[in-house]
Amino acid sequence: MVTLKGDERIDFLLAEENMRIIQSKEVFAFSIDAVLLARFTSVPITRGKILDLCTGNGVIPLFLSRRSQVKITGVEIQERLYDMAVRNIELNQLENQLEMIHGDLKDMPQELGNGRYDQVTCNPPYFPTPKTDKRNVNEHLAIARHEIHCSLEDVVKTCSRLCKSGGKVSMVHRPGRMIDIISLFRKYRLEPKRIQLVYPKEGKEANVLLIEAARDGKPDLKVLPPLYTHNENGDYSQEFREILYGN
Amino acid sequence: MVTLKGDERIDFLLAEENMRIIQSKEVFAFSIDAVLLARFTSVPITRGKILDLCTGNGVIPLFLSRRSQVKITGVEIQERLYDMAVRNIELNQLENQLEMIHGDLKDMPQELGNGRYDQVTCNPPYFPTPKTDKRNVNEHLAIARHEIHCSLEDVVKTCSRLCKSGGKVSMVHRPGRMIDIISLFRKYRLEPKRIQLVYPKEGKEANVLLIEAARDGKPDLKVLPPLYTHNENGDYSQEFREILYGN
Repeated sequence: MVTLKGDERIDFLLAEENMRIIQSKEVFAFSIDAVLLARFTSVPITRGKILDLCTGNGVIPLFLSRRSQVKITGVEIQERLYDMAVRNIELNQLENQLEMIHGDLKDMPQELGNGRYDQVTCNPPYFPTPKTDKRNVNEHLAIARHEIHCSLEDVVKTCSRLCKSGGKVSMVHRPGRMIDIISLFRKYRLEPKRIQLVYPKEGKEANVLLIEAARDGKPDLKVLPPLYTHNENGDYSQEFREILYGN
Repeated sequence: MVTLKGDERIDFLLAEENMRIIQSKEVFAFSIDAVLLARFTSVPITRGKILDLCTGNGVIPLFLSRRSQVKITGVEIQERLYDMAVRNIELNQLENQLEMIHGDLKDMPQELGNGRYDQVTCNPPYFPTPKTDKRNVNEHLAIARHEIHCSLEDVVKTCSRLCKSGGKVSMVHRPGRMIDIISLFRKYRLEPKRIQLVYPKEGKEANVLLIEAARDGKPDLKVLPPLYTHNENGDYSQEFREILYGN
């Protein structure tokens, strides 16, 4: 049995039968964006290694363990979340496939070596760091949401260094930052190959960007069909229900 | 009466009642992409100036004359197409609003001056120049489709120089070149503000990219709702029929 701390609870991991996850409103609960990235990203199936930066409570490694047999490592800077991620591995008896590192992503190329991963995934903080008095007063949530410990450039540069030549980097972010992301990807030799835009419903602007690049790849972008999360009534769309719940 | 040459014919300009256009299969017939760009682009309504590069038979200026009262200038390098564009102005009695220049877009900043236009539109050649023996054997079509007289970088650089600070540049292209386009836009101080992706039908990858940037603008991209040209039966979608035919 794993121990729950504070307001933590155990939830089912949606579409994944028999997979459960510890989370907490106060500290960290995974978002729809993590689900979308876990579904969007390519994965090596039987050979290679996957690294997930900004892993939080380990939600993306948990999802990816259902699509791949390779070793998956998560990196999380917040000790409280790292600790939750470690217990999530235990809870799901995935000790043979998943591991967690408590550390700063910027230190990982030195710690893990350059160019060692076939796939690097990341759901980074989305928002520029606000002035201290406007930050989220909850420090755990503030660090997960704002570029406090790492800028977008830190994230992209680190993804690029950790990824092997020909390997892939996938990320979820806000469409408003797409131009910055693409510029930084090119700067660090990550050539975008697949983009998917997610819309809250028909007729609305996109609110989630999914992007995957190949390290040292050739220019040849594909823009996948759009995905709508909600239908006209405001309920989850059938397409998105299938992603979330498998039906 | 205007004179028709060779295999030219006069077509109605789709949704625009009372507007007609001279075109020809052998030399130049406007594409769906031109219709999409003319609808997508912002326009100054009563003050300012619009420039359309790679104007072909002048289809985009003709469409824009229905949305704007400002002067619109088209630039075309092929004399045969320029001549068609001039006759299209006459045919529609738009001599007071539209004018055509026969010349190379790369010479336009020197000829017209830097930073004079509020809006610059362009539907450029999409394809890198193939070896001579693989080019389209029809030279008129080859020049319109391949980067023979201007590279993508020439086009973006020229758009940027001709556009005033705070003015806009809009372009239609293939999604496969989106990363190149965004990189070049940033290089020449054109900050993308609006992108729309057009899909041939639901479930397919995008096949047309519409992008609009502000000269010296701040980063803040919006990705508009997707547009589908066809429905599941392969007919034009209702949405696209409205764009094409106004019903």
